Amino acid sequence: MKEISIGLIGFGTIGSGVAKLLQENRDVLEARVGMSLRLARVADLDVETDRGVKIDRSILTTNADDVLQDPNILIVAELIGGYEPARTFVLTALRNGKHVVTANKALLAEHGAEIFGAAYQAGTQIAFEGAVAGSIPILRSLREALVANRFEKVLAILNGTCNFILTAMDETPGVSFDQVLGEAQNLGYAEADPSLDIEGIDAAHKLVLMLSLTHGIRVPVSRIHVEGITGIDPFDVQMAKEFSYKIKLLAVINDSAQGLEARVHPTMIPRNHPLARVNGVFNGIYLKCDAADEQLFLGRGAGKEPTASAVVGDLVEIARNIAAGCATRVPPAGYPEDRISASGITDIRNVVTNYYLRVQAADSPGVLSKISGVMARHRVSIHSVIQKGRHTSAGVPVVFLTHTAREADVRRAIAEVADLDVVKEPPVIIRIEDETIT
Amino acid sequence: MKEISIGLIGFGTIGSGVAKLLQENRDVLEARVGMSLRLARVADLDVETDRGVKIDRSILTTNADDVLQDPNILIVAELIGGYEPARTFVLTALRNGKHVVTANKALLAEHGAEIFGAAYQAGTQIAFEGAVAGSIPILRSLREALVANRFEKVLAILNGTCNFILTAMDETPGVSFDQVLGEAQNLGYAEADPSLDIEGIDAAHKLVLMLSLTHGIRVPVSRIHVEGITGIDPFDVQMAKEFSYKIKLLAVINDSAQGLEARVHPTMIPRNHPLARVNGVFNGIYLKCDAADEQLFLGRGAGKEPTASAVVGDLVEIARNIAAGCATRVPPAGYPEDRISASGITDIRNVVTNYYLRVQAADSPGVLSKISGVMARHRVSIHSVIQKGRHTSAGVPVVFLTHTAREADVRRAIAEVADLDVVKEPPVIIRIEDETIT
Repeated sequence: MKEISIGLIGFGTIGSGVAKLLQENRDVLEARVGMSLRLARVADLDVETDRGVKIDRSILTTNADDVLQDPNILIVAELIGGYEPARTFVLTALRNGKHVVTANKALLAEHGAEIFGAAYQAGTQIAFEGAVAGSIPILRSLREALVANRFEKVLAILNGTCNFILTAMDETPGVSFDQVLGEAQNLGYAEADPSLDIEGIDAAHKLVLMLSLTHGIRVPVSRIHVEGITGIDPFDVQMAKEFSYKIKLLAVINDSAQGLEARVHPTMIPRNHPLARVNGVFNGIYLKCDAADEQLFLGRGAGKEPTASAVVGDLVEIARNIAAGCATRVPPAGYPEDRISASGITDIRNVVTNYYLRVQAADSPGVLSKISGVMARHRVSIHSVIQKGRHTSAGVPVVFLTHTAREADVRRAIAEVADLDVVKEPPVIIRIEDETIT
Repeated sequence: MKEISIGLIGFGTIGSGVAKLLQENRDVLEARVGMSLRLARVADLDVETDRGVKIDRSILTTNADDVLQDPNILIVAELIGGYEPARTFVLTALRNGKHVVTANKALLAEHGAEIFGAAYQAGTQIAFEGAVAGSIPILRSLREALVANRFEKVLAILNGTCNFILTAMDETPGVSFDQVLGEAQNLGYAEADPSLDIEGIDAAHKLVLMLSLTHGIRVPVSRIHVEGITGIDPFDVQMAKEFSYKIKLLAVINDSAQGLEARVHPTMIPRNHPLARVNGVFNGIYLKCDAADEQLFLGRGAGKEPTASAVVGDLVEIARNIAAGCATRVPPAGYPEDRISASGITDIRNVVTNYYLRVQAADSPGVLSKISGVMARHRVSIHSVIQKGRHTSAGVPVVFLTHTAREADVRRAIAEVADLDVVKEPPVIIRIEDETIT
């Protein structure tokens, strides 16, 4: 049986998961693939800790070059995460003619041009299914099965930490963001420093990778409008419920009349939207395509075994390509590297959608008329209003749901509302996504 | 730009959808694929009807041989459906060295050994993503992204006609199967002769194809236990609701302690199971894998554009392989043809699951004790009972939910119950699937 030698860089959670999966499912892999994936070398700074996987100690090394320079190793899996030394390892592997598998979304999102360019120059492949939505086969589906479609809309829950927190806040009325974050950290669902997750940056990294597949463009993460979930107030979670919405951190691609929108922010979606049932640490992706119409993918977006599933799937893809002599059969970024465009996405101010607005106002006559007057002047039309009798020092909350309005108009209206002397706090703005699968 | 010539056999709904999609999305296809898919010839017995797609009349022909014998045509899409002449066309194309795309599940399920064998012999590829769950990329996902997994359980809604009918029966209390079937026929969701769909045969065809991908076995459809939905009574639909279940026609693969189960039958699933939200003509597939854990796919399982999306995705896959010189890179049946086994699935009598049992009994003292006594003797343990005061000439309905029981025991118990003189009608048995995604 033909054998393909693989090297791992990184023997932490994901790396040991990959080694374990290659061992435990060797029989089905060999039966399906018709060849053997041999783990030839594993590099990690720590080769002493027991990883819960039996491995020949002689293949362990603390020197990544033992993987990167080994001529027998055809595929390198980079599983250390972060920017450096991951970037150097990946570029070295590619320049040495090795194919690369990685689940490192941050690296690919920030250094994609350099890394994909290096792979393109070297004629080698880089596969990264595990970088977006973990075990869910979304990248392959966009690149291959759904390749004939124009992607009109992508709504995606891509960060399990945020989804765990928002699910808990929805299920436990009144619980604060900080309380749930602490719980998530205790359960291992949030990092000690959770900022990349809760600030929406991780989801934005994944969105940038999806954009290259759906629209053939490569934009810097800094161009994406990103809002995290740290400001989500339990009161707004409960108000969302009253309006039959759930708040989710969505990564959105919307190919609209306003241009190509790409944004990450907390979003109210109808409770009967299929994404509203993506709970806890699960990820979910909703697609609206011109031919395939609506599609939903749901599964685990992180974790040892689910990510290992994606990484080994990529190892197999490359191994099959090597065996068949066609390593660069499908462009990893969806479009051939020389057709990837840097053309932009539209400014968030051009977005047209519905809005949830909460204003903390003094409980005095004429307040509602003042606020709604400002909104009308800025062409923000009100669909419904609820004024709750919850008196606090910050006044009473007045909640507006708008008809579709232009973000620029909403921002101008809200800036003016915030300046009213009856308004006690900066208003809360949460976008609403009303589209529902049949 | 490199050009690959394609021939279509069949210019009905799907065929004209494929022609239209190739035209309308030519720009994105060329940008993504880096080559051009040229529709070189289209064969259909009827070349006069307007198909709503502009096409050069000179490429139309009534003679399939004009496609099958054209040396310039590298890929043939068979889109006429049915067994003959589809089988002959597909075999001829393969033997002529052409790659084949088809969405014909009946043909592949019944003649898979012959057809896959012919492709294997010829070194050509056969792709059929559209044959199972239409636009949902389930076959590719099983063969590629999830290739490292053992598939422990597959629960799939694979027939849109049945799902439309069952959804309507759930939503409209009391409406009969026949009424909804008539409505489905009026809406074009059911054929004039709907038997393949409503008897579960179509779902069984798709299940047989999935089995080759998940477990590398090829079994005749006749070996699959198949029950359709024609016997579903509105009363049982409402009882399911009372127990928080929904009735769905499920295709089930279960790699259990009892062996490999493959079966198609109406099934009660919890109303909070993600498959319970797959409504109307949508299809959905739930997977339980050892590494990737739980996955859900949802989308349109039939229709002109969704099926065309799958067919063109397959055309692109093969075109990419041709351009890269690796046509048979991934075995279409999941396992290489010479490793596909004929080893069997376990008999339905070995299945262990929960059951819904309805007995129409005389409303007289001691009835419940008689029935439950029979069940206890056959080791069928009762979880809950509801006796509804609905008197009819057939007696009162007594509904039992069982703890997990062995199908053989349930059948023996029910046969004996049916023979009791207080029992008026053959009892109703509906299996329950209690597993729920987190």
